[in-house]
Amino acid sequence: MKAEIITIGDEILIGQIVDTNSAWMAQQLNPLGIDVVQISSVPDKPEAIQQAFELAARRSDLILSTGGLGPTKDDVTKQTLAAYFNTTLRRDKQVEKHVEAIFSKLNRPMLEVNRQQADVLDHAVVLHNETGTAPGMWVEAKERIYVMMPGVPQEMKYLMENEVLPRLRQHPSQQTIWHRTLLTAGIGESFLAQQLSAFEDQLPRAIHLAYLPQYGQVKLRLTASGQDTLALDQQIALQFEKLQQLVAPYLVGIGDILLEQYILDNMGDAGLSLSVAESCTGGYLSHLLTRLPGSSRVFKGGGIVYSNALKTRLLDVAEETLATHGAVSEAVVIEMAQGAQRNFVTDYSIAITGIAGPDGGSDEKPVGTVWIAIAGRNGVRAKKFIFGKVRIPNIERAAANALVMLYDMVKTERAIMS
Amino acid sequence: MKAEIITIGDEILIGQIVDTNSAWMAQQLNPLGIDVVQISSVPDKPEAIQQAFELAARRSDLILSTGGLGPTKDDVTKQTLAAYFNTTLRRDKQVEKHVEAIFSKLNRPMLEVNRQQADVLDHAVVLHNETGTAPGMWVEAKERIYVMMPGVPQEMKYLMENEVLPRLRQHPSQQTIWHRTLLTAGIGESFLAQQLSAFEDQLPRAIHLAYLPQYGQVKLRLTASGQDTLALDQQIALQFEKLQQLVAPYLVGIGDILLEQYILDNMGDAGLSLSVAESCTGGYLSHLLTRLPGSSRVFKGGGIVYSNALKTRLLDVAEETLATHGAVSEAVVIEMAQGAQRNFVTDYSIAITGIAGPDGGSDEKPVGTVWIAIAGRNGVRAKKFIFGKVRIPNIERAAANALVMLYDMVKTERAIMS
Repeated sequence: MKAEIITIGDEILIGQIVDTNSAWMAQQLNPLGIDVVQISSVPDKPEAIQQAFELAARRSDLILSTGGLGPTKDDVTKQTLAAYFNTTLRRDKQVEKHVEAIFSKLNRPMLEVNRQQADVLDHAVVLHNETGTAPGMWVEAKERIYVMMPGVPQEMKYLMENEVLPRLRQHPSQQTIWHRTLLTAGIGESFLAQQLSAFEDQLPRAIHLAYLPQYGQVKLRLTASGQDTLALDQQIALQFEKLQQLVAPYLVGIGDILLEQYILDNMGDAGLSLSVAESCTGGYLSHLLTRLPGSSRVFKGGGIVYSNALKTRLLDVAEETLATHGAVSEAVVIEMAQGAQRNFVTDYSIAITGIAGPDGGSDEKPVGTVWIAIAGRNGVRAKKFIFGKVRIPNIERAAANALVMLYDMVKTERAIMS
Repeated sequence: MKAEIITIGDEILIGQIVDTNSAWMAQQLNPLGIDVVQISSVPDKPEAIQQAFELAARRSDLILSTGGLGPTKDDVTKQTLAAYFNTTLRRDKQVEKHVEAIFSKLNRPMLEVNRQQADVLDHAVVLHNETGTAPGMWVEAKERIYVMMPGVPQEMKYLMENEVLPRLRQHPSQQTIWHRTLLTAGIGESFLAQQLSAFEDQLPRAIHLAYLPQYGQVKLRLTASGQDTLALDQQIALQFEKLQQLVAPYLVGIGDILLEQYILDNMGDAGLSLSVAESCTGGYLSHLLTRLPGSSRVFKGGGIVYSNALKTRLLDVAEETLATHGAVSEAVVIEMAQGAQRNFVTDYSIAITGIAGPDGGSDEKPVGTVWIAIAGRNGVRAKKFIFGKVRIPNIERAAANALVMLYDMVKTERAIMS
């Protein structure tokens, strides 16, 4: 199936917002065998929206739009689409109740513009948006599927995961497609590609290997699609078995799962607890863990020790160590990890200290220098990294590498990961 | 002048890469009075590239493309464009020398595919790419300007800054565009829209108001475009003045800036410090602050107190308070904020405790219940929120509302925000 994404909104065209929705949507559609053949960003103007829909419908079977469904006057999408589909808008009672419930919960009076959130295309299947007031809409017309969603990333994601993808999976036009995914850690993408070069060459035409890399972790996905379901089912099982053997030294686990989820699951099953001491990552590592439901079984909390005073106060880092070695040093990161383990009373602790940038670097310790330590049951391990010059990627890479180090230590110490 | 951006490359359509180039390019083009009317991402396929150029040329005066010029893909894009422009490719001697110099510096053998980087459209002005092997090209044809650039962000930026923008500045542009942005907090988008309804109705046709909402904050942007630069300049200044007066009670500040940046700047200028005590937000609030460069001037750190044990240990929350009221309660959040302020020795502290979900809710305290407290110079203020059922939006909304509460208290207590 061919798909096209239309993002609606002036804020993208003036560069105020980077369109991250489209890449995320494409990632979700690909495993269903749905190829995104074009992404178009158009302004909040009826002619532009209408033309984008017309052109997309000529090229594709599935048209997904995001944005333009907010309550204010700059959102003209619904009226334009009513004209495009040659239909009218009707007020949906269920959506209206949902919007009313949100407003009464927030203790805010409800205005007519809020009520208009409940106006939907007359012939649309309404997609319930638990996360906001603007519903999604699903329309099958002119031998095409059209899906309209709000542009707020969390609302779009909620609708995709709960309403759109399940419907697409069941749609009769879908050809059969298999995926087998596994996660590796501690080896770079290009190294992995080199090792898997012969494996890729011998893959049957109907089976495809994809690399999905992210900071020290690489997800590998085998995809098979076609008509001969029985043969393909056997082939992909065989190839996936081969792949697992080839990547065995770096294999974290099977399935489409995050490294932090593996760590939490496996530490949880073993009754192990975790705390953190974050300096330059400033809460981001904790966020990676706590955004996952059930993380409190393993993760107890920790200290964000941005200032040296808090490093001493919360983690008992000696003032002398700070003065002698500086805050970004092996000696300090080890004291941080041990202090967190002791003061927060957990089996494992992660400590991170570094220079995220853009300022604060020196010749000896340039921007991007990060020390990470893991304190475990059998001692501490510390490692120095030198990342790049850009602040947010430095924060992300530090957190991701800390997870890889924790994974390695827990695996080695406890052999709890299969 | 109307412009259109075409990004060429399969990697965008499978979601492996987020297109950050287009937003950056739009930001550079806007101040020149160049209005981006569409952004299209197409695959490395001749028909798709050809069609994208044809459609863009119908709508716009300036067509900028990125991508598709790498050594493995240049066949497709350059051959397609040669056909589109009804011309041929020629090997450019200067580019060939530049590519040779790069390879000899890297001590790598040069292949024929690398030499092909020097093939350019016969009638193009070649744009020198100091940062890589693929040159840019500038073509004026069919009363349109076409600019082709590589897709690697730093190469595209080099070409834009050194070759493309200087040439565009010299082109007499037909229109000038103005933007004026301000940030409001503490009022919903639809309320604001109601209050601004009469203002919107009286706006001149050439001036447009856009709402950019996010969790308790709404950015408002006035845009003017047209020929009569002198009149428009005066008009937008006048309308922006009116707008500021209308939103005065909710005005955070002028410009395209984040609430957390305002808070950090203003607290920093007043010499005030901040710490946090995060339970259900698990580090996310700290991350919002620490992702900003220079945040350490104000933000000292804090505790991530996921477990009750850490609430007591780090913040001195009384075990009795936890037992009597539960961790998600006004009494506990107040002790958390006061404990953070005292133990982390800061002027202000934010505390958040709640049930992010999906589990842990009860009839009395459903999923989405969040207590937030701010401890300041003149005491503590606590507020209860009931958000939705979905974990990550609950975390984001809690953090955003905590920032709004902090902003309000600092503003009230110190009147430091103008």
